[in-house]
Amino acid sequence: MKRLTLEDYRTEFTSFLAEQELEKQPKNLYKPITYIINLGGKRMRPVLTLMATDLFGGNTKNALHAALAVEIFHNFSLVHDDIMDDAPLRRGQETVHEKWDLNTGILSGDAMLILAYRCLEVYEGEVLGQLLSLFSKTAIEVCEGQQFDIDFETRNDVSLSEYLKMIEFKTSVLVAAALKMGAIIAEANVVDQNLIYEFGRNLGIAFQLQDDYLDAFGDPKTFGKQVGGDIIENKKTFLYLRALQLADDKSNKTLLDLYSIQPQEPMSKITVVKDIFETSGAVTEIRNQISFYTDQAFKALAQIDIDAERKRLFHEFGTNLMQRTV
Amino acid sequence: MKRLTLEDYRTEFTSFLAEQELEKQPKNLYKPITYIINLGGKRMRPVLTLMATDLFGGNTKNALHAALAVEIFHNFSLVHDDIMDDAPLRRGQETVHEKWDLNTGILSGDAMLILAYRCLEVYEGEVLGQLLSLFSKTAIEVCEGQQFDIDFETRNDVSLSEYLKMIEFKTSVLVAAALKMGAIIAEANVVDQNLIYEFGRNLGIAFQLQDDYLDAFGDPKTFGKQVGGDIIENKKTFLYLRALQLADDKSNKTLLDLYSIQPQEPMSKITVVKDIFETSGAVTEIRNQISFYTDQAFKALAQIDIDAERKRLFHEFGTNLMQRTV
Repeated sequence: MKRLTLEDYRTEFTSFLAEQELEKQPKNLYKPITYIINLGGKRMRPVLTLMATDLFGGNTKNALHAALAVEIFHNFSLVHDDIMDDAPLRRGQETVHEKWDLNTGILSGDAMLILAYRCLEVYEGEVLGQLLSLFSKTAIEVCEGQQFDIDFETRNDVSLSEYLKMIEFKTSVLVAAALKMGAIIAEANVVDQNLIYEFGRNLGIAFQLQDDYLDAFGDPKTFGKQVGGDIIENKKTFLYLRALQLADDKSNKTLLDLYSIQPQEPMSKITVVKDIFETSGAVTEIRNQISFYTDQAFKALAQIDIDAERKRLFHEFGTNLMQRTV
Repeated sequence: MKRLTLEDYRTEFTSFLAEQELEKQPKNLYKPITYIINLGGKRMRPVLTLMATDLFGGNTKNALHAALAVEIFHNFSLVHDDIMDDAPLRRGQETVHEKWDLNTGILSGDAMLILAYRCLEVYEGEVLGQLLSLFSKTAIEVCEGQQFDIDFETRNDVSLSEYLKMIEFKTSVLVAAALKMGAIIAEANVVDQNLIYEFGRNLGIAFQLQDDYLDAFGDPKTFGKQVGGDIIENKKTFLYLRALQLADDKSNKTLLDLYSIQPQEPMSKITVVKDIFETSGAVTEIRNQISFYTDQAFKALAQIDIDAERKRLFHEFGTNLMQRTV
């Protein structure tokens, strides 16, 4: 039997998405919802749900509604986060609160959160109970992660473990839950459900740490965002927090000083900060951490009680994800 | 056996509420939640859930989580509505976005919506499926009602049926759902579930229409809000929309003119508008409509297949609710 590719799963999901009648009355509530959902994106999370259902011998058709719940929830969080971050653009287009207004952003976001839950109504019995419980636990963690992120902006005593918990909640638990929901639908055993969750959770943390690293040290040609952006914005990433712990007193003071200013011409600041990141050993450590979480992800995958050939796509997915210029 | 009073049900709910540990980390997310929930209010909706479970022979203990879901959802909608309405006060205290800030209002509101769903996790099987489906349907209707209300502010062609749908969605479906959730938990039959829903839905509409009426014609001593407030704010209530349809051309023009201004001294505007409401026949009609929806509510209650004595508290509740100075 021919193995499906990522693209096959994505096509299955986007076809299903295209069938949904999201645009109802009142138009001013539903238009922003179709707008943000149709801005696209890689549909990574719903694809993972379908992949997980398939891996554990379930029918991907049964996973489409859960995949849609995850994708709508993800888009809800984008709409409300963009308001909180005062972001003008999302995927190169106007954000919802920019294109419409604040109230529309709040209310259509609320409606999306509810619509995400509605997608789960097609499930029954224990599967419904398990999906609902996992989905809500994840959703509240995403809110908590966002609150930690906001709090960290004005705090000077953020610990590394707090930072790791923040990125775990803000980004990786939803990836992990997307996978586990697929496993629940396929009625995989609880051990395997938790292993696929751990695969996603660890890979998500590795990915986010890699993002921190690439933001400073990535190749401007291949990294999508402005290199040095986090440094310009004085963002307290893993590199910054760890450098503060490891650097000598002089470098430590320089770092604190540089993170209290936002110079018009940031190049020299970026150069000095990156140098401290390297000499302090923070760069070595983030690379080690990325390897650690990536290994943890693959170890969890390896322990899933299914033959390696069937897991190959997950392996490829993880490998490709972590093979950006790091 | 001694019949329970409203106060008994309220005490049962508030004791349960007091046991909940709502305040977790991060504090900045959960403090606003405990703040708004502890501002109080009559706890009418959760009380109705417990009453309905009891009516249909269920154990009110089993209804406490559903009652809490309804109350948390109601408070979520207050937090986000207060942002949208730019309201400084709620129950005489600062609103969440005033006491903290916009982002806190958005994010803690989101968390409350998720926490409301989490309350439903204690249910299982068909009861869970039915509660979830009703809860989500209701929640999305509340959002739609809020959007209709926002849209109406800038529309000049609002029909009476649209207005009625708006107040139904914005306020009465949640009261109806609170009752039906109680019936679902008691495993009442579907006919009775729908009758108790209709009792709440019609009573909610009657109550809201009465609120429109009292806003203009209530006794300033007993009506909680400023009499004439809707007229001052040019709010398109039932009275205004119906008067526009019924009044002669001259009065119609006067009404439109008066609803395009906001005079510093509103007394004469209020007097003229109220006169048009009366002479046009809009007042007679709203009184008829209030009676109609109240009757519909009591008819639904009468049809429920339970002896009248057990339904007496619902009768008293409806009668008291509608016996404000109308």
